[in-house]
Amino acid sequence: ERTGKIDRQPSQDSFRTYCQEKLMPRILMANRNEHFHREILNEMGELGVLGPTIQGYGCAGTSYVAYGLIAREVERVDSGYRSVMSVQSSLVMHPINAYGTEAQKQKYLPKLARGEILGCFGLTEPNHGSDPSGMETKAKYNPSSRTYTISGAKTWITNSPYADICVVWAKCEDGRGRGFILERGMNGLSTPKIEGKFSLRASATGMILMDEVEVPEENLLPHVSGLAGPFGCLNNARYGIAWGALGAAEFCFHTARQYTLDRIQFGVPLARNQLIQKKMADMLTEITIGLQSCLQLGRLIDQKKYTPEMISMLKRNSCGKALDIARQARDMLGGNGISDEYHIIRHVLNLEAVNTYEGTHDIHALILGRAITGLQSFTVGK
Amino acid sequence: ERTGKIDRQPSQDSFRTYCQEKLMPRILMANRNEHFHREILNEMGELGVLGPTIQGYGCAGTSYVAYGLIAREVERVDSGYRSVMSVQSSLVMHPINAYGTEAQKQKYLPKLARGEILGCFGLTEPNHGSDPSGMETKAKYNPSSRTYTISGAKTWITNSPYADICVVWAKCEDGRGRGFILERGMNGLSTPKIEGKFSLRASATGMILMDEVEVPEENLLPHVSGLAGPFGCLNNARYGIAWGALGAAEFCFHTARQYTLDRIQFGVPLARNQLIQKKMADMLTEITIGLQSCLQLGRLIDQKKYTPEMISMLKRNSCGKALDIARQARDMLGGNGISDEYHIIRHVLNLEAVNTYEGTHDIHALILGRAITGLQSFTVGK
Amino acid sequence: ERTGKIDRQPSQDSFRTYCQEKLMPRILMANRNEHFHREILNEMGELGVLGPTIQGYGCAGTSYVAYGLIAREVERVDSGYRSVMSVQSSLVMHPINAYGTEAQKQKYLPKLARGEILGCFGLTEPNHGSDPSGMETKAKYNPSSRTYTISGAKTWITNSPYADICVVWAKCEDGRGRGFILERGMNGLSTPKIEGKFSLRASATGMILMDEVEVPEENLLPHVSGLAGPFGCLNNARYGIAWGALGAAEFCFHTARQYTLDRIQFGVPLARNQLIQKKMADMLTEITIGLQSCLQLGRLIDQKKYTPEMISMLKRNSCGKALDIARQARDMLGGNGISDEYHIIRHVLNLEAVNTYEGTHDIHALILGRAITGLQSFTVGK
Amino acid sequence: ERTGKIDRQPSQDSFRTYCQEKLMPRILMANRNEHFHREILNEMGELGVLGPTIQGYGCAGTSYVAYGLIAREVERVDSGYRSVMSVQSSLVMHPINAYGTEAQKQKYLPKLARGEILGCFGLTEPNHGSDPSGMETKAKYNPSSRTYTISGAKTWITNSPYADICVVWAKCEDGRGRGFILERGMNGLSTPKIEGKFSLRASATGMILMDEVEVPEENLLPHVSGLAGPFGCLNNARYGIAWGALGAAEFCFHTARQYTLDRIQFGVPLARNQLIQKKMADMLTEITIGLQSCLQLGRLIDQKKYTPEMISMLKRNSCGKALDIARQARDMLGGNGISDEYHIIRHVLNLEAVNTYEGTHDIHALILGRAITGLQSFTVGK
Repeated sequence: ERTGKIDRQPSQDSFRTYCQEKLMPRILMANRNEHFHREILNEMGELGVLGPTIQGYGCAGTSYVAYGLIAREVERVDSGYRSVMSVQSSLVMHPINAYGTEAQKQKYLPKLARGEILGCFGLTEPNHGSDPSGMETKAKYNPSSRTYTISGAKTWITNSPYADICVVWAKCEDGRGRGFILERGMNGLSTPKIEGKFSLRASATGMILMDEVEVPEENLLPHVSGLAGPFGCLNNARYGIAWGALGAAEFCFHTARQYTLDRIQFGVPLARNQLIQKKMADMLTEITIGLQSCLQLGRLIDQKKYTPEMISMLKRNSCGKALDIARQARDMLGGNGISDEYHIIRHVLNLEAVNTYEGTHDIHALILGRAITGLQSFTVGK
Repeated sequence: ERTGKIDRQPSQDSFRTYCQEKLMPRILMANRNEHFHREILNEMGELGVLGPTIQGYGCAGTSYVAYGLIAREVERVDSGYRSVMSVQSSLVMHPINAYGTEAQKQKYLPKLARGEILGCFGLTEPNHGSDPSGMETKAKYNPSSRTYTISGAKTWITNSPYADICVVWAKCEDGRGRGFILERGMNGLSTPKIEGKFSLRASATGMILMDEVEVPEENLLPHVSGLAGPFGCLNNARYGIAWGALGAAEFCFHTARQYTLDRIQFGVPLARNQLIQKKMADMLTEITIGLQSCLQLGRLIDQKKYTPEMISMLKRNSCGKALDIARQARDMLGGNGISDEYHIIRHVLNLEAVNTYEGTHDIHALILGRAITGLQSFTVGK
Repeated sequence: ERTGKIDRQPSQDSFRTYCQEKLMPRILMANRNEHFHREILNEMGELGVLGPTIQGYGCAGTSYVAYGLIAREVERVDSGYRSVMSVQSSLVMHPINAYGTEAQKQKYLPKLARGEILGCFGLTEPNHGSDPSGMETKAKYNPSSRTYTISGAKTWITNSPYADICVVWAKCEDGRGRGFILERGMNGLSTPKIEGKFSLRASATGMILMDEVEVPEENLLPHVSGLAGPFGCLNNARYGIAWGALGAAEFCFHTARQYTLDRIQFGVPLARNQLIQKKMADMLTEITIGLQSCLQLGRLIDQKKYTPEMISMLKRNSCGKALDIARQARDMLGGNGISDEYHIIRHVLNLEAVNTYEGTHDIHALILGRAITGLQSFTVGK
Repeated sequence: ERTGKIDRQPSQDSFRTYCQEKLMPRILMANRNEHFHREILNEMGELGVLGPTIQGYGCAGTSYVAYGLIAREVERVDSGYRSVMSVQSSLVMHPINAYGTEAQKQKYLPKLARGEILGCFGLTEPNHGSDPSGMETKAKYNPSSRTYTISGAKTWITNSPYADICVVWAKCEDGRGRGFILERGMNGLSTPKIEGKFSLRASATGMILMDEVEVPEENLLPHVSGLAGPFGCLNNARYGIAWGALGAAEFCFHTARQYTLDRIQFGVPLARNQLIQKKMADMLTEITIGLQSCLQLGRLIDQKKYTPEMISMLKRNSCGKALDIARQARDMLGGNGISDEYHIIRHVLNLEAVNTYEGTHDIHALILGRAITGLQSFTVGK
C-alpha cells in the first residue's frame, strides 16, 4: 500500500466546510453530556486528515503547513475534537511511522488513516505529570515466549476508553524507555474513563492500567529508545496544538465581535465602547502575530530547519494567548457568556487543558530558559 | 414578631463548621449534575444567616461585618450556594424590609428568614444586561380591581425556577420603576430554567416570564421608586459578594498550596519551585489586602459612613482578583486541575459569573471613573 | 540626479557594524548630557540609510524590508538616533518625494539623503496631541506676493532645534490641511528646544513657532491635501518604528541575559533561577513573533498589499511589547539597572516616548477597533 | 537627654504643608541636575520627623502609624527625599537605638534627630545584591589598640557621599556579621559618588570603600550579631517604604486625573474616555486597598503583633503597584509625560529603584513563598 494511489487529499476550504457543517452542530450536546462521537474518526479518515503528513500507507502526505491548517480548522470547533485527531496523527501514527517496523506500518497505518481503528498514547503517569523521566511503568522481556510483560499506569490519556490500540512507553530492564503497541483485549489491560472532567468533554479521557500485560515482541517499536521517542511524538503534536489553539481563539474573537455588534446597551452596540474595542484590538493582534509565526514554523519544519525549542515557543505562546483571548471573549458576552450555547465558555474550559497538556506553560518557559541560558532550572541541584 | 426573641445568632466558627461539614460534601455531585439542594435554605434559616442584618422579624440582626464573614464562609464552598443566600438576603428580604409595608414584612420576612419560602429578584432583562434604565417590563394599574397588570421578561434570575416569591421591578405608567412581590401560582407567571449553564451549577437560574400577571396593589413595595430601589438592593448584595469572592479565592489558594506541597516532581515538592512560590505570594497578597479592605468597608457600613462607590470598588476588586487567583490555582494543579474532584475548576467557572453579575468588572470601572472625574462615560453623548 | 548612479547601498551587516562601532560609543554621554550629535546625519547619509526606499535623487532605493532592518539596527543602539533617522526619511524625505514637485525633489532630496541638511516634521500641536483634525495652524494665501502666511505652533518636534527645513502642516482657507516646506531663517520662524526631557535625550526635541512666516508658494507640497498627507508620512514612519522598537527590545534582552549569566548570587548565576528564565522566555517569544510579523508586513508593503491598519497593529504591538521587555530587563539588573552605564534604563525611558508618539498605544487600539467593528469610538457622538 | 522635653511633635497636616511648600518647589531642578539639598535634613530635624518612633534622645516618639504617614507625605514629593529620611531614621538611628550602647545613643541620636549630622547604611556589596550572607567586608580585632580593622566595599549606598557617619556591617573573625559606626575622616574611608544614575537623582548615592579603616571598639554596635541586625533595620525601613511608595502613587494618580480633566481632545476632556477612566479606577483601587493594609500593619507594629513577612508583603505590594500606577499615569500624559515638569516620569524612575532596593519584588516573593510553604527556593539545593 506504500505506493498505492492516495485519493484523499484534504484542502483547507473543504475541510473547513466539513468542520463547520458536520462537527459544529454536534458539539453543543456532545460537550454538555460528555459524549464522544466515535464516528468522527471515520469521517476524518474519509477526508484524509489523519496522519496527513505521512507519505504512503493510505496517508495524504501533506506538508506541515497543511497539517497546521487542518488542526486550526478542527479546533475552531472544539479542542476535544482536535485532541482526538492530534493523538491519532501525532502520537499514534507518527511513532509507528517513525519508529516502527515495515510490518507494523503495513498493519496499523492504513486502518488508523481511515479512522477504522482509534489509537491512544500512554506516556504521562499519575505521579509524573511534567517529568517523564520518572516513569514507573516497567517492561520485562520473557525470552521463552518472546514477549514483554508490561505493568504500570498511565493517566489523562485522550481516547483511551475507546482506543483499539495504545502506544505505551515503558522502562525496559536496561533502564531505557521504549514504545509498545498494545491492543485492546490483551489480558491485564483496562482503560477506565475519568469522570467529572470540565474540559475537552467531547473527547474521552481515561487511564491505561496494565497489570502484567503480555505483549509480543513484534509490538515493540524498535527504532528508538530513551526519551527521544516520546519527545519526538510530543513535538509533532505540539506543533499542531500551536495552530489549533489559535483556531479556538479565532472562534472566540469572531463570536465576541458579532455578539457585541448585535447587542445594544445604552443606545449603541456594545462594540461601540472603547473598553470593548481595546479588548478586540488586543485579541486580533495576538491571533495575527501568533498565526504568522506558526506559518513560518510550518515552513521551517517542511524544510527540516526547525528546532524543538521553536515548537515549545509557539505551543506555549499560542496556548497561553488563546486561553487569555477566550477569557476576554467570555467576559465580553456578559451573563450569556456562561451559557454553553454561545460556545465560548466551552473554549475557555478546553484551553485550560490545552495550555497544560504536552508541556505546561511554565514547563515550556523553562525549556526555553534552558535553551537561552544553557542552564537548566527544572530541578534542584546544579 | 418584630419584638420577638431571636434565638438564632450565627457565629463565624459554627457557621464555618456547617459549611465545611454539611455543604462541602454535597457540592461535587450537585455541581456536576446541576442539582439544586433546596433544603439548604432551611438549614441556613436554622442557623440564622438569612437576612442576617435585619432587626426583628425572626432575623438575627447581626452587623455587616458579620454578614461579610458569613458570605465568605459559604462561598469558600461554592459561589452558587452563596448566590442563593445573597439573593434571599439582599435582594428579597432587604427590599421588603427597606421598602415594604409592615404587613409585607410580617407576612414574608419570618418565612424567608427560616428558609421556609425561597425568593428571587427580577431586574435584569434579556436585552438590558448592564443598563437597567432600559427596562421594558411594564406595570399597568387597574383602578377597578386595585391590581397591577405586569408583562415582561427577566433573565439570568438566580433561584427563579424554585422561588416561591419574586421581587420584580417594572416600569409604571408614570415612567418610574417600582418593585412588586409576585407569588408562584399567579396566572401568567412562569419561571423556566436556563439549561447548559457552566457556572453556578449548584444553584438554579432561570427566567421570569410575565404575561399579564395580575398583582394585588398590596404587593407593591411602596417606599421607593426609580432605580434607587434596585440599586439599594444591589449595593447590599455586592457588599456580600466582595467578601464571598475572596472566600472562594482562599479555598483555591489553600488547595493549590496543599496540592503543590504533596506532589513531587523532579524529586522535590512542586511547592519548592520559584514559579509556584511566586504565584502563591501574589495570591496571598491579594487575598490579604482585599479582605482587610472588606473588613474596613463593613465597619463603615455599620457606622453608616459608606458610599456606594466603596462597594463598587471592592465588589470589582474582589471578583477580578478572585477569578485570577482561581485561574492560577487551576494552573498549579496541572492536568488534575480540570477534574471537578479538586474543586478549583468549579470555582473558576463560578467566579466568571460572579465577576459579571451585579455589575461587570468594566461597569464598575466606569462607575468608579464617574466618581473620580465627575464625567460619565457609559453612554455616547456628553 | 534622478537617474544618477547610486553607489551607496546599505547592507544589514555593514550597517550593524557602524551602529555598534560608531554610534554605541557615543550614546552614553550623549544621553546623559542631552547632547545631539548632528554629524551622525552625515555618517548615515554616507551609508545610504536616509530615505533609503526612495528611488533616485541620491537615495538607495532599497526594499521596505531593508528599511525595517536598518531601523532595527539603529534603535538597537538608541531610539533617539532612530527617531532622527525616521524623521529625516519618513517624515521629511517621504512627503517631498510623494507629494512634492520635481523641483522640490531635485532641490531637497539629495541634500537630505546625504545628511547635509536636516529636516523636521510639524504636525502635532500643543492642544491636539492625538487629534490632528483639530489643527489650529493657519496658512493664508497672498495672491500679490504668491506666498502663504503661516501662523501657529507645533510641539514635541524631533530635530526642530537643529533642522534646516521643516515640513509643516497647516490649514488653508478652504479648510483643508496642506504641507509646506519652511526653511530656517525665514522671518517669524523659531524652533526653541524643550528642556527637561527624560526620553530620547540623544535627539533634540523642540517646538516650531510660526509668527506670520511668509512662505513662497513653490514651497507648498501640491500633490496632497487633507489628513491623507500627514497620515501617509506617519504610516511610513510607524512601519520603521515597528521594527526599531524590537531592536531596542533585543538589546535589552541580550544585555539582561548576559548580566544574569555573569552575576552570581546564592552560589549560582542569576540566570539559573526560574523567575529569571521565565522572564527571558517571555521576552524572547515576543521579540521573535513580533519580528516575524514585521518581516511579513515589510514584504506586503514591498508588494503594495498592505493596509494602514496592519501598520497600526505592529507599531502598537512592537512598542508596547518592547517597553514591557525593557522594563523586565531593567528589573533583572537589580540596582545596577538604574545606572545609565548598563543602557537599559535609557531604553526604558526612550520606549516611553516611542510607545506614545505617532499614535499612542490606546489610539492605535481604537484605530484597530474601528477597523474590526466599523464603529469609531474616538469621539463622543455616534 | 533621654528624659529631656521633646518639643518637636510632627503632625500629618503640618508636615504635608512643609512637603508641598518647601520640598516640592526644589525637586524639579534637584532631580534634573542631580543635586542633593543637604539642608533638607536640618529642616526635617526641625519638624521632628527623623527617627520619629524613637523614645527620647531628642526624638519625637511617635507611633508607627505616624511614621508611615510621614513617609507617605515625603514620597508624595520624591522617593529620593524619602530615601534620605528612611536611611537616617530606619537604617542609622534605629540600629544605634536598638543595638547600640547608651554612650552611642547619647553621642549620635540627638545630632541625627536634628539633622545636624547625616548617616548612611552600608550592607549591600558589589557582588552580593540580594544575598547579604555573601558578605566580603571583614573586621579584624586588634587587641593591642582595641580597634577593629575593616576592609571591604559597599555600593548603592544612599547618602554615602555626604554622610558624616556610616553604619557598616562587616564579618568578624568568628564569621558573624556585626555593625560598626564609622566616621567621615577615618583613614582609609572614602565614599565616591555614583554617576549616571537615572533614579532618585535628588538624593546622593555612592560607595563606601574601606581600605583598612581602623575603628575604635566603642564604635561596635554590641547588642546584635549575624543577619538579625541588618534585617531588623531593613524591616524598619521597608515598613516606611510600603507607605511611601503609595504616596508617590497618589501623586501620580492625582496629577494624571487633573491632566486628563484639563486636556480636551476630540471635543471632550481626555478623562471622559472609557480607557482613561478604567486606568484611574484601577489606580485608585490599588492605592486604597494598599493604604488600608499599611494602616493595619502600622497598628500591628504599634501593638508588637507583626511578623517580618507582613512587611515583606506590603513592601512588595506597594512598590510593585506604585510602579505600575506611575507608568499608567505617565502614559496618560502622552508626550508631556516624558517632561520632568509634569513630575511623573521622575516618579516612574524613582520607583524602579524603590521596587528594587531593600529586597526586590522577586526576593520578597520568595520570602513570602518560604513562609507559605516552609520550603526555601532562593538557592539550589534542598
